[in-house]
Amino acid sequence: GLATVAQLNKVTIGLIPADGIGREVIPAARQVLESLPKTESSPRFEFIHLDAGFEHFQKHGVALPEETLTRLRGECQGALFGAVSSPSHKVAGYSSPIVALRKHLDLYANVRPVASVAGTDQKQLDMLIIRENTECLYIKQERIETDAKGQKVAYADRKISEYASRRAGQMAFNMALMRDKLRSQVPASERLWQDKPKVTIVHKSNVLSVTDGLWRETVRSVKETNSKYAGVDMDEQLVDSMVYRMFREPEAFDVVVAPNLYGDIISDGAAALVGSLGLVPSANVGDHFVVGEPVHGSAPDIAGQQKANPIAAIRSAGLLLEHMGYASEAARIYQAVDGVLREGQIKTPDLGGKSTTQDVTDAICKRL
Amino acid sequence: GLATVAQLNKVTIGLIPADGIGREVIPAARQVLESLPKTESSPRFEFIHLDAGFEHFQKHGVALPEETLTRLRGECQGALFGAVSSPSHKVAGYSSPIVALRKHLDLYANVRPVASVAGTDQKQLDMLIIRENTECLYIKQERIETDAKGQKVAYADRKISEYASRRAGQMAFNMALMRDKLRSQVPASERLWQDKPKVTIVHKSNVLSVTDGLWRETVRSVKETNSKYAGVDMDEQLVDSMVYRMFREPEAFDVVVAPNLYGDIISDGAAALVGSLGLVPSANVGDHFVVGEPVHGSAPDIAGQQKANPIAAIRSAGLLLEHMGYASEAARIYQAVDGVLREGQIKTPDLGGKSTTQDVTDAICKRL
Ligand SMILES: CC(C)[C@H](C(=O)O)[C@@H](O)C(=O)O
Ligand SMILES: CC(C)[C@H](C(=O)O)[C@@H](O)C(=O)O
Repeated sequence: GLATVAQLNKVTIGLIPADGIGREVIPAARQVLESLPKTESSPRFEFIHLDAGFEHFQKHGVALPEETLTRLRGECQGALFGAVSSPSHKVAGYSSPIVALRKHLDLYANVRPVASVAGTDQKQLDMLIIRENTECLYIKQERIETDAKGQKVAYADRKISEYASRRAGQMAFNMALMRDKLRSQVPASERLWQDKPKVTIVHKSNVLSVTDGLWRETVRSVKETNSKYAGVDMDEQLVDSMVYRMFREPEAFDVVVAPNLYGDIISDGAAALVGSLGLVPSANVGDHFVVGEPVHGSAPDIAGQQKANPIAAIRSAGLLLEHMGYASEAARIYQAVDGVLREGQIKTPDLGGKSTTQDVTDAICKRL
Repeated sequence: GLATVAQLNKVTIGLIPADGIGREVIPAARQVLESLPKTESSPRFEFIHLDAGFEHFQKHGVALPEETLTRLRGECQGALFGAVSSPSHKVAGYSSPIVALRKHLDLYANVRPVASVAGTDQKQLDMLIIRENTECLYIKQERIETDAKGQKVAYADRKISEYASRRAGQMAFNMALMRDKLRSQVPASERLWQDKPKVTIVHKSNVLSVTDGLWRETVRSVKETNSKYAGVDMDEQLVDSMVYRMFREPEAFDVVVAPNLYGDIISDGAAALVGSLGLVPSANVGDHFVVGEPVHGSAPDIAGQQKANPIAAIRSAGLLLEHMGYASEAARIYQAVDGVLREGQIKTPDLGGKSTTQDVTDAICKRL
C-alpha cells in the first residue's frame, strides 16, 4: 500500500545553510523539494537543520561541529550546503567546513553542470565539470619555516593519487555516457550537441610532469582499459589554455575532468559564461552520500536582502535527487527552472531583474 | 659624437624562437626592432640566435643548452623567447626551457599587460597582470611513491616565500604608480581609467591559509610599509572569483598580482577577453635581465604557414625595450600596433582576417 511505499521512499536531507545568502537559498531549495508533486514513487522528505560555517566558528570556535557530521552519517541520505564566508584575514584554528565535509564523507567527485538556457545567454554551452574533490592542494598540508636571513618560507603539499584520479575519471566517463543517452532522447533540432560524447582532461603536465603526469595517465587509462567507454572521445587541455578555449569556444566541451584546484577555477569561469554564478549548481558525490551545493559564495554584501538568486541552490537540490536515484523528480526541477529562465520575467538582480529570492522560488514551484 | 652615442646604445638581444610559430613571430619582432627610426638616443641592435625548445630536446637531448644560458649572460642585455611545445606524453628528462630560463636568470616578475584597443573588442579593459615567476608549483619538486595497495601517489611542493612575494608585490605597486603617471598624460575623454590606481591581490587563502596567507600578508605589507604607495588602492580576490569577475567586469581591474600558477591561468583568461592569445605579450623581468615572450604557445597546428599573429611577439619586443629603459621606442611600437588593430584591415586568421604574419609585420613597420 501507499504507506509502505512512502515508508520506502522516506529521504532525510540535512540542511546546512552556513553563512550569508546560504540562509536564504537553502530554504528556497527546501520549498522546491516540498512542492514536488507526490506520486507513489516519489520521495517523502524529512529535513533536519544542521550547523556549520564561519559565523558558527566565530561564535562557537568550530566551523563544522561534530554533531553535524554525526547526524549526517547517522540520519541523512543526503544534504544541501549553502555557502561559507571566507575570513578577510588570517584566523587561527579556522578551516573551511565544506572542504572538511567533502573529506570526512569521502565525496570524491564534485559534479558541476554549466549549461546555457536557449534564448537567455549569448554563448551556447552545455558542459559538465567533474572536479576531483578530495586531494590536490586541498589536503591542506602546509608548513612555514624561517630561512637563514630571517625571512619566512612556506610550503604546501599537492597530492595526486592514482586511486582518486581513477575515481574522478570513472565518474567523468560514466557521466559522458549518461549525458549521451539523455541527449539521444531530445529531438535533433533542439540539440546543442550533435557529436559523440567527449571527456576533456585538464592538467598542467608540461610543468607538473609527475603529479599531473599521474593524473593524466590515470584518467586516460580509465578509457583505455574499459571497452564500455569506446564510444566516448577523449582529449586534453592544459589548464591555462582550457580557460582560454572555454571562453572562445565553450561549445567544444562536453564533460571536463580536472584536479581539485583547476576544477574550482574552471567552474567559476564557466559560470561567467552563463551570466551568473547564481545559476550554477554542484553535487559533491561519494559512493554513499551526496551533498548539493551552489557554486556561489556567501555574498555578504547582499545577504539578508532577498536579492540572492536561489536557482543555483534549487538546481543543486535537483542534482542531489539525481545522484540519489530520483532522476524524474530531478528533471522536473530542471525543467521548472529552465521554464522560468526562458520566460525571463522573474529574475533576481544578478540577472538584471528586480525580483526577490522568494518570487523566483515561487515561480519555480508553480511550474513543478 | 654620434659614434660614441651609438656605441653607448648598443644593445645585444638574444633571439630564442624555440618551437612552432616561435620561428615565425620572433623574426617578425626582430624586423620591427630593426625598423625603428634611428635617433641619437635610440638603441643600436645586434641580434644573436640561440637554441632551445622541445624540438631541440628531441634532436640533442637538452631543452635549454648551456651555451644559450652562457651567451645570454655574457653577451646579451635582453632576449626574446618564442614559444615551446608541450610533449603530448611523458618524456623522460624533458623539462620546460622557459621555466628554466626564468629561474636561471632570476626573472622574478612576469609582466603581462592585457588591454583592449578602442573599436576592436566588445569588452573594454586595461589590466596589467604581474605574475610571480620563480616559485609556487613551478619549483618542480615532485616525487612519486607506491602505497601499501600498490597504487601510485604523487606529491608536488608549492613554495611561497616572503622574499619572492615581496619582490612581486613591489613590482605591482611600482607599475601601478607608473601606469597612473602615463594615464594622467592622456586626455580625460580618451581614458578608460578615471580612478585611482589599484593593485588586486589574487590568492586562495581560504584553503591555503599558510602559503597563500603568507603571499597575501607580504604583498599587503608592501603598501602598508611604504608611504609612496599611499595613493594606490589595494583589494583582493580569491582566484576562482577572480576568473569570474574578470569576465563579468574586466574594467574593475588595474594591476593584478598573483602567485605563479594563478597568474598563468588568469593571463590566458584575460587574453580571451581581448579576442586572441595572439595579441598578448609578456616580459620576464629581473633586476639585471629581461626576456620578452608572447603569452601564446607554439601552435603546432598552424606552424610554418604564415598564419601566426606576430603582434604578441612584437608587443613583447616593446615590453623588452620598456623594461630596458627605452620607453619612447616602446611607445612607438605599441602605437604602431594599435594603429594597425584600430584600422582593422590587416589581420591574421585568429582575428578573423586573411593576412599573413608578414603582412601584419610590414603594416606595423610602416607605421613606426
Ligand atoms: C569555499 C571554498 C573553500 C570552496 C572551494 O574552493 O572548493 C568554493 O570555492 C567552492 O568552489 O566550493
Ligand atoms: C609553457 C609553459 C611552461 C608556460 C608556463 O606555464 O609558464 C606558459 O604557459 C606561459 O604562460 O608562459
